[in-house]
Amino acid sequence: MAKRTVYCGRVSKEQLGQKVTLKGWVQKRRDLGGVIFIDLRDREGVVQVVFNPELSKEAWEIADTCRSEYVIEVTGEVIARTPEAINPKMVTGEYEVMIDEITILSKSKTPPFPIEEDANVGDEVRMKYRYLYLRRPNMTKNLMTRTKITQSIRRFLDDNDFLDIETPYLAKSTPEGARDYLVPSRVHPGHFYALPQSPQIFKQLLMNAGFDRYYQIVRCFRDEDLRGDRQPEFTQIDIETSFLTADEIQDYTEQMIAKVMKEVKGIDVTLPFPRMSWDEAMNRYGSDKPDTRFDMELIDLSETVKDIDFKVFQMALQNGGVVKALNAKGAAAKYSRKDMDNLGQYAGQFGAKGLAWLKVEEDGLKGPIAKFLTDATDAIVAATNAEVGDLLMFGADSFEIVAATLGAVRTRLGKELDLIDESAFNFLWVIDWPQFEYDAEAGRYVSAHHPFTLPKASDVELLATDPAKVHAEAYDIVLNGYELGGGSLRIHTRDVQEQMFETLGFSRREMQEQFGFLLDALDYGFPPHGGIALGLDRLAMLLAGEENIREVIAFPKNGKAVDPMSAAPSIVSPLQLFELNIDVTSVEED
Amino acid sequence: MAKRTVYCGRVSKEQLGQKVTLKGWVQKRRDLGGVIFIDLRDREGVVQVVFNPELSKEAWEIADTCRSEYVIEVTGEVIARTPEAINPKMVTGEYEVMIDEITILSKSKTPPFPIEEDANVGDEVRMKYRYLYLRRPNMTKNLMTRTKITQSIRRFLDDNDFLDIETPYLAKSTPEGARDYLVPSRVHPGHFYALPQSPQIFKQLLMNAGFDRYYQIVRCFRDEDLRGDRQPEFTQIDIETSFLTADEIQDYTEQMIAKVMKEVKGIDVTLPFPRMSWDEAMNRYGSDKPDTRFDMELIDLSETVKDIDFKVFQMALQNGGVVKALNAKGAAAKYSRKDMDNLGQYAGQFGAKGLAWLKVEEDGLKGPIAKFLTDATDAIVAATNAEVGDLLMFGADSFEIVAATLGAVRTRLGKELDLIDESAFNFLWVIDWPQFEYDAEAGRYVSAHHPFTLPKASDVELLATDPAKVHAEAYDIVLNGYELGGGSLRIHTRDVQEQMFETLGFSRREMQEQFGFLLDALDYGFPPHGGIALGLDRLAMLLAGEENIREVIAFPKNGKAVDPMSAAPSIVSPLQLFELNIDVTSVEED
Repeated sequence: MAKRTVYCGRVSKEQLGQKVTLKGWVQKRRDLGGVIFIDLRDREGVVQVVFNPELSKEAWEIADTCRSEYVIEVTGEVIARTPEAINPKMVTGEYEVMIDEITILSKSKTPPFPIEEDANVGDEVRMKYRYLYLRRPNMTKNLMTRTKITQSIRRFLDDNDFLDIETPYLAKSTPEGARDYLVPSRVHPGHFYALPQSPQIFKQLLMNAGFDRYYQIVRCFRDEDLRGDRQPEFTQIDIETSFLTADEIQDYTEQMIAKVMKEVKGIDVTLPFPRMSWDEAMNRYGSDKPDTRFDMELIDLSETVKDIDFKVFQMALQNGGVVKALNAKGAAAKYSRKDMDNLGQYAGQFGAKGLAWLKVEEDGLKGPIAKFLTDATDAIVAATNAEVGDLLMFGADSFEIVAATLGAVRTRLGKELDLIDESAFNFLWVIDWPQFEYDAEAGRYVSAHHPFTLPKASDVELLATDPAKVHAEAYDIVLNGYELGGGSLRIHTRDVQEQMFETLGFSRREMQEQFGFLLDALDYGFPPHGGIALGLDRLAMLLAGEENIREVIAFPKNGKAVDPMSAAPSIVSPLQLFELNIDVTSVEED
Repeated sequence: MAKRTVYCGRVSKEQLGQKVTLKGWVQKRRDLGGVIFIDLRDREGVVQVVFNPELSKEAWEIADTCRSEYVIEVTGEVIARTPEAINPKMVTGEYEVMIDEITILSKSKTPPFPIEEDANVGDEVRMKYRYLYLRRPNMTKNLMTRTKITQSIRRFLDDNDFLDIETPYLAKSTPEGARDYLVPSRVHPGHFYALPQSPQIFKQLLMNAGFDRYYQIVRCFRDEDLRGDRQPEFTQIDIETSFLTADEIQDYTEQMIAKVMKEVKGIDVTLPFPRMSWDEAMNRYGSDKPDTRFDMELIDLSETVKDIDFKVFQMALQNGGVVKALNAKGAAAKYSRKDMDNLGQYAGQFGAKGLAWLKVEEDGLKGPIAKFLTDATDAIVAATNAEVGDLLMFGADSFEIVAATLGAVRTRLGKELDLIDESAFNFLWVIDWPQFEYDAEAGRYVSAHHPFTLPKASDVELLATDPAKVHAEAYDIVLNGYELGGGSLRIHTRDVQEQMFETLGFSRREMQEQFGFLLDALDYGFPPHGGIALGLDRLAMLLAGEENIREVIAFPKNGKAVDPMSAAPSIVSPLQLFELNIDVTSVEED
């Protein structure tokens, strides 16, 4: 084999007139008037290589046997194409390479689907032949974008005294949070490791050990049912620091992201990112991860309608709830009654009993509930800034349900009405989170983030008396309506941590058994600390312009947590189970 | 909290005369004539801070309550110590900080062991309070060295067009190699993922996908019984490339290592590293990972003694074996008969029936076997370059047993006789490995590396007929007698891969079931490729000057694969087992 002199996709003016050696895959072959043209592809792109029998009969003859996806090595001179032959769609479209030597390095059967990216292929085939799907230029580019992101992040953190320290994957199962993946221990029958859902406690202990600034780009595991952008394993940019305030941690984080945006997308983002309290985000956008690329905010009408004799509104207000509205400007004509019924059903998924709506017409408000609101027409028009042609939608229920419903409707309408600037990257900090959410099913408070989150100093006393009112030193970073990451200051004193476990319903015995080692550590000079964790898959997805994280993961699992390529998970041998001291109680047929 | 202006360990001339704010742990407190001196420690080192009641009575009073391992924030002016107060053992020993403000950030109980590094502590306590053990300056430094190594490696690979691509941790169990850690699937009863022993197949498929140059610093898992420098999970610097020769891959690898040595140790290593064939390494050093920091090579006496009437030698030679010797120069006086008995027993562990020996004295060779060798004394003396005072040891058995025995004895004597320059870093490539080892117990050939290793082109035909003679395009990199990593070119054609599986005893059905997806991939333009994997833990251990990889891992497991800190592995809830469709057949008591 000769040495490659340049990647196909990087052939440029620099090589003009030079002999080059290229190695790559035959993407396309054409015969034109006895001359063979091959689009040769490597990870960097495609270049046209030309086999003219007058230059080398031998090379031409070998090229004539080449089929799609053969791997070849070619040597020849880079020349400029004639003006009429220039292909402006190809980065290398002004050049071609006149080949006088060719070696076939590897042959290929006809692939089960074409590599060109626009061909439509079923999910199952795409995953079974994942290595072929990854050859598609957009997939190659996605993974290269991901590499660029991690490089950029690592350099930022390295340059700011953060230490890259590894934490165990064979860890301990804890009941808080999502379901663990377990790993049976062979040496200790009946005992199990758990794959970590995050290295949370380990990174806190690294702060206790004095490492001061830690980061790790680390795999995390959750055995949950999969949704669109979930995978059994995902990658976290995990950061922890000692002695910094929440603001300082946010500053570092956004500087890091600004560097990524510059280096990966060439975009200068403005710092600091806007900061919005959780309360404000829920009030204005009905979401703790608002997409601020468009307005259409929630409008509180509770005051406006408080004296209106409309049962739906009155019930909500009397029960301590709220009445809010969305105004979809100029959308009235775009939504039929049937469309509104559909939207009402959609709203129902988020807890609403229905979605009341009105259209603003020349002669007033029209729609199913118009007759109940005649006394308040002017007030509602004023409060919602309604104009002819607008579509008004109402939510009347508890604060949570109205927020969830109108927030979801807002997001859906933003897309349907094309309100979103797809080229924009709107970052936002959502700060001052509530410490707890109430889990009605379990009848107890659960952590909004995790049980190590530091409550606001002024709220610590409420932990025992009124948990619902406790706010936390917690912050999420949001990009275009996606939660990109979340962080907090952590508890660093034993008494607060014990109180926290108590509020979460732990008995003394439970907290000792499960988190005793952390409580012990709090006795020995645990420094004030905090950090953040960002989802790398999601960040890469958004920067690559994809809608599913599978498109930025080399070997993802499908919706059933299966890798159709290698057929994992699979049945294992009886000896393996015997050695692990386990039996299977049920076996799915393959 | 005020902002830290400088790490304790970085206080220097630059801060002289300035006010600084430091944050750290109280390492030591002394009262001298009413003035309090505290050695304040952070990850970068220690500085002396001084509380003089005349400067601030208030600060002095708080300092007076500080105990070991309290976390404090202090502000004060950096001054030069008087000449007689300079501490040359401290990096910051020419300075001290006169404190006028102090805040206690966190209190500490008396730690279960002192943090100063020389105090002796039991393994169990050290691991239970790992976060305290990690505060020890040498441990902090070890992990910082490890970070530096990975930074240096990543920058080298990034700068050379390698792409950092992640591969799955939830993978498929395969029977080749060591025992897998398994992960039960909840969604697919009776099915299991396996934690990868290495991302070998994934990285090959990334080459098939065209990524050309891949790397990953990746966790690997092996459920084996633990030895000194083994852990259930370990970290690999995993590299794969397309279109390069074995030599080119070795060149990149050693350039990378040279950069690490320069940046981490400040040492200029000479490139290229020596390359030695496996045959030569076994012949000269009795080891496939020879420590070349000292000589004392194995001397082949098979010719020399072939006519000597000594049954032990004759038996070995007649059975196709060899007779070899070691000459420990000047060591005769240091080893008593009893020492030699011990050494003989040690040799027995490596398969030898004993260790024959002689001492070279003024009047000839003395020792238990001297009487059998009288006819060959001169020849043996000449061949071994023996001089008065030397200790000669003999191995007579199969090539393998003699190599293993004398290789082990050589290593032990190298240490006992202090022949090793501990400051040296001797890198070496061991190339041209045999493809197979014969597993007498299983009665079949097994891969010396793994079943994807490319045989030498000239040996492919021997795969079917004489596997023992097949050599591979495989190479190991060795540092000071440790295998640092191993690599090879890989098979990239289906017929050779199928032949390989056949030679290894796979049936058609087995190879299809276990590796069918790889065989399929070989049908679709799989490029020539190869790579290497280096053990990061071992590299870090050697560069940190440690003798156990636990000292360069933040949270290792103990010899029973247990983390005594968090008590992993542990018993899990019946619900967890129920959801995973498994039962435990036996439970170890806690």
